[in-house]
Amino acid sequence: MNDLLLALQQKIDNKTKPPGSLGILEKIALQVGLVQDTPAPVIREPHIVVFAGDHGIAATGLVNAYPQSVTAQMVHNFINGGAAINVLTRQYGIGLTVVDAGVNADFDPALPLVHAKIQYGTQNYLNGLAMCADDAIAAVKQGAAITAAIAAKGCNCIGFGEMGIGNTSSASLLMHHYTGLPLADCVGRGTGATDEQLQQKLNTLEDAADYHELARYDITPHSLLCRVGGFEIAMMAGAFVQAARQGMLIVVDGFIATAALLVAIKLYATPSDPTVLVTPPIGLLQYCIFAHASGEQGHRKMLDHLGARPLLQLDMRLGEGTGAAMAIPVIRSAVQLLEEMASFESAGVDGKA
Amino acid sequence: MNDLLLALQQKIDNKTKPPGSLGILEKIALQVGLVQDTPAPVIREPHIVVFAGDHGIAATGLVNAYPQSVTAQMVHNFINGGAAINVLTRQYGIGLTVVDAGVNADFDPALPLVHAKIQYGTQNYLNGLAMCADDAIAAVKQGAAITAAIAAKGCNCIGFGEMGIGNTSSASLLMHHYTGLPLADCVGRGTGATDEQLQQKLNTLEDAADYHELARYDITPHSLLCRVGGFEIAMMAGAFVQAARQGMLIVVDGFIATAALLVAIKLYATPSDPTVLVTPPIGLLQYCIFAHASGEQGHRKMLDHLGARPLLQLDMRLGEGTGAAMAIPVIRSAVQLLEEMASFESAGVDGKA
Repeated sequence: MNDLLLALQQKIDNKTKPPGSLGILEKIALQVGLVQDTPAPVIREPHIVVFAGDHGIAATGLVNAYPQSVTAQMVHNFINGGAAINVLTRQYGIGLTVVDAGVNADFDPALPLVHAKIQYGTQNYLNGLAMCADDAIAAVKQGAAITAAIAAKGCNCIGFGEMGIGNTSSASLLMHHYTGLPLADCVGRGTGATDEQLQQKLNTLEDAADYHELARYDITPHSLLCRVGGFEIAMMAGAFVQAARQGMLIVVDGFIATAALLVAIKLYATPSDPTVLVTPPIGLLQYCIFAHASGEQGHRKMLDHLGARPLLQLDMRLGEGTGAAMAIPVIRSAVQLLEEMASFESAGVDGKA
Repeated sequence: MNDLLLALQQKIDNKTKPPGSLGILEKIALQVGLVQDTPAPVIREPHIVVFAGDHGIAATGLVNAYPQSVTAQMVHNFINGGAAINVLTRQYGIGLTVVDAGVNADFDPALPLVHAKIQYGTQNYLNGLAMCADDAIAAVKQGAAITAAIAAKGCNCIGFGEMGIGNTSSASLLMHHYTGLPLADCVGRGTGATDEQLQQKLNTLEDAADYHELARYDITPHSLLCRVGGFEIAMMAGAFVQAARQGMLIVVDGFIATAALLVAIKLYATPSDPTVLVTPPIGLLQYCIFAHASGEQGHRKMLDHLGARPLLQLDMRLGEGTGAAMAIPVIRSAVQLLEEMASFESAGVDGKA
């Protein structure tokens, strides 16, 4: 590893530019080289998977500005190419897979969609479990399987997005459990709550946190998913684990994706977990590039908790993997600069006086 | 204008996403629509022009880590496709023009280069003028003419970069004059000065500022260029003015480009100036998108002075227009999202409950 690190740094420093002058792009080139275990990394077939799922709590109207029906409608929008993530993946030549992880609607089996529905949405976790243990395990496994299939087609750089009315609530509760921060730091406006709606959301989620005893330290990641998770979040957690196991570069989107990553970190670190067969030599975070700092207020605090510096700060807070899509060309630039720039020697350029 | 602003905002808000959730991308789409005076803006043939010039002061070795020979060597590197700006413009489908504005070397006339050399570099401004008045005017005009030619080929989005050993010194002096900030706030490490070299650079530039009486308020932009300018900076200033006059979207690169912009703002606001025929209805800054915050320390302060928020913060400090190149795909995304995303109505997606 040390030899590779030195070889990469030397290659970067020999490029025709002052040392360090490509800033974060140099750090990314280095990281991708380490992840791919080569001084000549390459980004192949970058891909974004959007997991969609519904949340029982959304039916209460206590935590969300949009009706639950929007989740299924947006899945159709993804299929028809009209959503933000479609525009961005087209622009940047990124593959796109849409997954029905647990939407509260039936989709025509002929639609170009991964039909992986676990249930028609989670149960309302205000008065019971969001999902049963078998479903949590199935969702994590399914996310891993979808990722493995994409890797098998030649992709080595993957981002995960989501769609699910009510899922910032689930993400806030996961964040609260893993970071120990007060819920007020973890709860934001989601798709655009007013002050009053935000307070109602916070009160509602405080009840949920109490009911599920989220302050306890002994909750396993699967148990946490059962309590307050979502099917799209559970699949995303499994997908993160699998992507790291396969040595893929992982582009982490925004608030919900990062909350799913917190679950994935625990899954990844638990060798006895049935979905994890091997613990790779480097930690899950070393495969991750954090695409952006979302406009959703808790995201920055979650990134700080992880010691992560986001690549972009465009005040986006849309989900769907749109932040990851914006970051992928930047990552590509970093790798192509490493590959294509001339060296001082090859270009006949003098070094420092 | 107000009708257009409303039409653009309504178009943005009708897209299938929560209001405001595309953050800065929405602001950019709005700005591009206003610049192009249409609710359906489009980015056509984006282009970067790299102006190269040498600085007499570089021969003293007092302000620069690299020898002057590097300017000409890097011009060859640009022509051969091996520099960072080549890699990025190839990746993002951006046109690239390289201009010999005043390099201290002869280039084969057959090279694919705009041969616009004013002189073989500026004079050392430590004990005289950097350039004579005729040369300053010629350089500004040349920058405008080059920009007009690129616009004539269909480009409506342009960025300017530079190459010139010693040019952070010139930019620091321009910044000092226009912002009124102490030179210590304007002088940075450039291509990588040590602490000792930085102090020497600061001392040297303080002498130059005294010698040229840069604290005076009555210095015209042309006179300022004569005192402490550079040919690449003067051409860039003329290019900024012309780009705005032609209604192009302008992508402002880093420290040196922003210093040239300060000169351009004055040129643009001076109707009696021989290079400016018409004062357009909106100010120069309204055409500008600030690509990034450079790692060169004075840049952030210059942006603050202009009230500008940079799009990216990648700690880049390379010049060549590399920051502008990274920003152009982001701008394209903003415009394509405006153009290609479905509306709530067209996609059959419900609005807020």
